[in-house]
Amino acid sequence: MKTLKTVEDLTTRLLEIQRINSAASLLSWDQETHMPAGGGAARAEQISTLQGIAHQKLISPDIERLLATWVDPETGEIRDSPGDAWDEPARSLLREVWRDYSRAKKLPSDFVMTLSRECSLAQQVWAEAKEYRAFSQFLPNLRTVLSLKREEAEYLGYRDSPYNALLDVYEPGSTIAALRPLFAQIKGRLVPLLKKIQQSSVQVDDTILFHTFDQARQLEFGRMVLIAMGYDFERGRLDLSAHPFTTSFHPTDVRVTTRVHEHDLQSCLFSCIHEGGHGLYEQGLDPRYFGTPLCDSVSLGIHESQSRMWENCVGRSRAFWRFFYPMLQQTFHHQLRGLDGEQFYAAINRVKPSLIRVEADELTYNLHIMLRFEIEQDLIEGRTRPEDLPGIWNLKMEEYLGIVPSNDAEGVLQDVHWSFGAFGYFPTYTLGNLYSVQFYEQAKLEIPHMEDEIAAGQLMTLQRWLGQKIHRWGRMFTPDHLAQRVTGKSLDPEPFLTYVEKKYGELYKI
Amino acid sequence: MKTLKTVEDLTTRLLEIQRINSAASLLSWDQETHMPAGGGAARAEQISTLQGIAHQKLISPDIERLLATWVDPETGEIRDSPGDAWDEPARSLLREVWRDYSRAKKLPSDFVMTLSRECSLAQQVWAEAKEYRAFSQFLPNLRTVLSLKREEAEYLGYRDSPYNALLDVYEPGSTIAALRPLFAQIKGRLVPLLKKIQQSSVQVDDTILFHTFDQARQLEFGRMVLIAMGYDFERGRLDLSAHPFTTSFHPTDVRVTTRVHEHDLQSCLFSCIHEGGHGLYEQGLDPRYFGTPLCDSVSLGIHESQSRMWENCVGRSRAFWRFFYPMLQQTFHHQLRGLDGEQFYAAINRVKPSLIRVEADELTYNLHIMLRFEIEQDLIEGRTRPEDLPGIWNLKMEEYLGIVPSNDAEGVLQDVHWSFGAFGYFPTYTLGNLYSVQFYEQAKLEIPHMEDEIAAGQLMTLQRWLGQKIHRWGRMFTPDHLAQRVTGKSLDPEPFLTYVEKKYGELYKI
Repeated sequence: MKTLKTVEDLTTRLLEIQRINSAASLLSWDQETHMPAGGGAARAEQISTLQGIAHQKLISPDIERLLATWVDPETGEIRDSPGDAWDEPARSLLREVWRDYSRAKKLPSDFVMTLSRECSLAQQVWAEAKEYRAFSQFLPNLRTVLSLKREEAEYLGYRDSPYNALLDVYEPGSTIAALRPLFAQIKGRLVPLLKKIQQSSVQVDDTILFHTFDQARQLEFGRMVLIAMGYDFERGRLDLSAHPFTTSFHPTDVRVTTRVHEHDLQSCLFSCIHEGGHGLYEQGLDPRYFGTPLCDSVSLGIHESQSRMWENCVGRSRAFWRFFYPMLQQTFHHQLRGLDGEQFYAAINRVKPSLIRVEADELTYNLHIMLRFEIEQDLIEGRTRPEDLPGIWNLKMEEYLGIVPSNDAEGVLQDVHWSFGAFGYFPTYTLGNLYSVQFYEQAKLEIPHMEDEIAAGQLMTLQRWLGQKIHRWGRMFTPDHLAQRVTGKSLDPEPFLTYVEKKYGELYKI
Repeated sequence: MKTLKTVEDLTTRLLEIQRINSAASLLSWDQETHMPAGGGAARAEQISTLQGIAHQKLISPDIERLLATWVDPETGEIRDSPGDAWDEPARSLLREVWRDYSRAKKLPSDFVMTLSRECSLAQQVWAEAKEYRAFSQFLPNLRTVLSLKREEAEYLGYRDSPYNALLDVYEPGSTIAALRPLFAQIKGRLVPLLKKIQQSSVQVDDTILFHTFDQARQLEFGRMVLIAMGYDFERGRLDLSAHPFTTSFHPTDVRVTTRVHEHDLQSCLFSCIHEGGHGLYEQGLDPRYFGTPLCDSVSLGIHESQSRMWENCVGRSRAFWRFFYPMLQQTFHHQLRGLDGEQFYAAINRVKPSLIRVEADELTYNLHIMLRFEIEQDLIEGRTRPEDLPGIWNLKMEEYLGIVPSNDAEGVLQDVHWSFGAFGYFPTYTLGNLYSVQFYEQAKLEIPHMEDEIAAGQLMTLQRWLGQKIHRWGRMFTPDHLAQRVTGKSLDPEPFLTYVEKKYGELYKI
C-alpha cells in the first residue's frame, strides 16, 4: 500500500511553501487590521515578493519531477501499479496537489507577483474610495485588476467563457452552464415568496435594532457567542476591520474580524457569528496534514456553508435566541427591555429588499449574488466597461430588488472582492446558502435533540458534528463527494427552498 | 564615475531579500504583540523558513558573481580602476554589502534556520518563565540557544574570544579588548560619584511616581509625547508588549511598543520616549535606498544613542519638563497636584541602585550593563554553565549594586535578549549612553537655542538635526566615521561623564 509516507519528499516541500503563504496571509491580515496608512506601498511589494517565491517553489523542477513519478503529466491521472495501490489520503493528496500545481504551472511567476502587488494596492485604494464614496478614485485600479484577471483566465484556459476559469478557482468544477439554471430555479421560487411577503398583512418592526448600542458591549457579546460556538481564542483572535473576514496561518492561529456600528445591533453580532463559522472550519482542519491540501478547505461554497449555517440556520433561529436573548437583553437592558423574544426573532428575520448584501435577509441575499454574477460575467467577457459599472449596478438593483443606492459606497463600492481580483467568488455565497441548509437538515436528522441543545446554549454538539463530518477532512473529498458522504446527495437546492418557504411562510402568515 | 546605477543588478536582488526580511520582522512583531499563544510553534517555523530563504538568496552564486566583479573575494577590497572611481554611496554600499555577505557566507542555511526557529521558541518560553518566575522552565531553551550561538561564533571566526565574533554583529569593530578599558574608565568615575550621592544629605523622594495612574491616560500621554518628538503615526504605530521594542519593515512602517504599569508612572512614559528615539531613526532612513545598507541603521550603539538621548538628555531634563510637566499635572491632576516641577525633576532623576535595568537611573544603568557583559563572556567562553546563572547573577548584583533580587523575574529573567540569542548586544547600550551625550552636546553647540525650544515644546529642531546628521545616512559611514563627522571625534566617554557629574552633582549638592 502506498501512503502519505511514500510522498514525504513532496509534502516536505509543500510545507515550506505553505509557511511562505502563511506569512503572506499575516501580511494581508495586518494590512486590513493594523498597518499604518503610509506602509501600503511597501506592504504590496512584500506580499508580492512572498507570493512570487511561493509560486516559483510550487512549479520548481524539483516538484515537477516528484509529481511525475506518481501522476501522469499528460492526463493528470494517478499512476497505479497492480498490487500496490494508493490509500485514500495519499490518492486525494496527489489529486489535489496536481490540481494546484498544474494551475500554477500555467502562470508566469512575474504575472503572479504583478497580480499580487496590484491587488494589494487596489484593495487599499478601494477602502479609501469607499470612504469618500468616489468610484472614480477606484476606477484606475479596478481597470488594472480586471485586465490582469482576464489575462489570468487566458493563461489558465477555459471552455465557453473566461469566467469559467475564474469560477473554478473558488469552486472546483463550477461553470456558468451549471450555475445559471440553478440560480434560475432558486429565483423562480424566491421571487414569488418575496412578493407574498411584501403583500402580507404582517408588518415586522425592526427599528429597535437601529437604536444606540455601546460598541464595546456589542464586541463583548460577539466574543461571548464565539466562545459558546467553540471558537478557540487560544488559537484565534477577534479584531476590527473595514470588511469582516477570516484568515488562517495554521489551525493553531486562525483570526476573524468584525465591524461594529453604534446604530446597528446586527452588524457586529451576525458578522461575529458568520466569521466564527469560517473560523471553526479553519480551526477544525487536521494540523497533522498542515502544508498539504488535506489541511485546506475544500471549496469556498463549502466554507460559506459553515458561516451561513451558523449565521442563519443557528443565529437567526428561535432555538438560539431562546438561550441568548435573555443575555442580550441584559447586556442592552435599556434598549431591549420592551421587546420580547418573539418580537426580536421577527426583527432579525425581517425580509425587505435592501442595499447592502452582507446585511440582507436570507431571501433577498441571493438576489444580490445573482446581480453580481451577471455583472462579473459581463466584465470578464468584455461586454461591460469598468467605467460603466455604477450605472449598471444601479439598473440591476432596480431590476432585482426594486431599490437604487444613493451613492456608490452603498452601491458598487460596497464589497471588497473585486479590488483583490476575486471575480467568480460571489456565486459561492449562494452555493454556501444551499449547502448550509442541506447540511443543517442532515445534522438535525442525525442528532435529534440538537435544537434543544442549541436552545440550552449547547452549541458544541453541532460544532463537533461539523468537525467530524466536514472540517477534519480538508480536501480529502471533492465538494460533491463530500456533500454525498454527509447527506447522501449532491448539492440540492430543495432543502434551502423548503426551509425559507416554511420559515418565512410561518413568520409572515402566508 | 561608478555610482549606485553601476550596481543596480545587485541592489535589485538585495531589495527582494530585504522584503523577505521585512516580512519576517512583521511575523516577529505579531508574535510579541497579537499572536494567540497556540500559534507559537507554527510561527517559529514561518520565521525560520523566511530567514532561511533570505539567507540562501544572500549567499546565492548570483550575488557572489556580481560582488566578485567589484570586490576582491580574497581581501574584501573594492576594485578601483584608474580614471573611473566609485562615488561615496556606491563605495559604502559595496563595503557594507560585502560585510553582510561574507558573514552570511560563513553560516550554513540550515544553521540559520535552526537558530531562527530556536530563538523564536525560546523567546516564547522566556516570556512564560518570567511570568511564573521559573528560571528552570527556561533553562532547556537557553541551553539550546547558547550552544547555537557558540556554534555561530565558530562559524564566523574570531580573534581572542568567540564573544568578539558576536559583539561585531551588533557593533562593527567592537572587541572585548576595546570595551574592557573603556568600561573600567567609566566605572572608575561612576562608582565614586555614586558613593557621594549615597552619602549626600539630599534625599530625593519619588514615592509619588508609584501611586495609581490610569493606564489608558498613561498611554495617551506617551502617544502625545511621541507626536511632539516628530514620530509619524501615518508611518508608525504604538502597541503594547511584554518588553518594549522598535521594529521597522520600511521607513513608511515603523512600529514601537511600550508597556504600562498602573503603579509606575515612569515605565510607560520613558519607554515611549526611548522607543520613540529608535523609531525616529528608522523613520528617518532614506527610503530611496531601501533594501540596501544605505537604508539601514549603522550600529546598535548609534541606534541606542538616539533612544537614550531622547530618554535621558531630553526626557529627564528640566527643559523638557518645563513644557510637559504642566500637561502631565493636568492629566494626573489628582496625583500630582502637590508636586512642583522641580520636585518632579528630582524624582525622575533619583539615583538609587535598583534591580531592573530598564528602570535604572542614568548612573547605575551602566553597572547593569557591565555585569551582563561579564556574564555573557563567561557563558560564551564556556566558563559559566547556564544552570548556574541565577546564582551568578545574584552574586554580581550584590557586587555591582549592593542589592539582590528576590526572584528570577527581577533577576536573570528580566531581559528578553538572551532568549533570542542576542549575546553581545548589551554592551551597545553603554556605548549608546556615551554616544548620546557626545551627540547631544554637539547639537547644543550647533543650535544655541535648542534647549529653549525644547522648553517651549519644540522638539522638532533636535529631531531634524539628528535626521540630517545621523538618520539619513544609514550605513554610509562606519560608526566611528559617523561620530567623527558629527562631533569631530571618535567615541569619547568624557562628555557623558562630565554630563552626569554636573547634573547629579548639582541635584545632590555634591
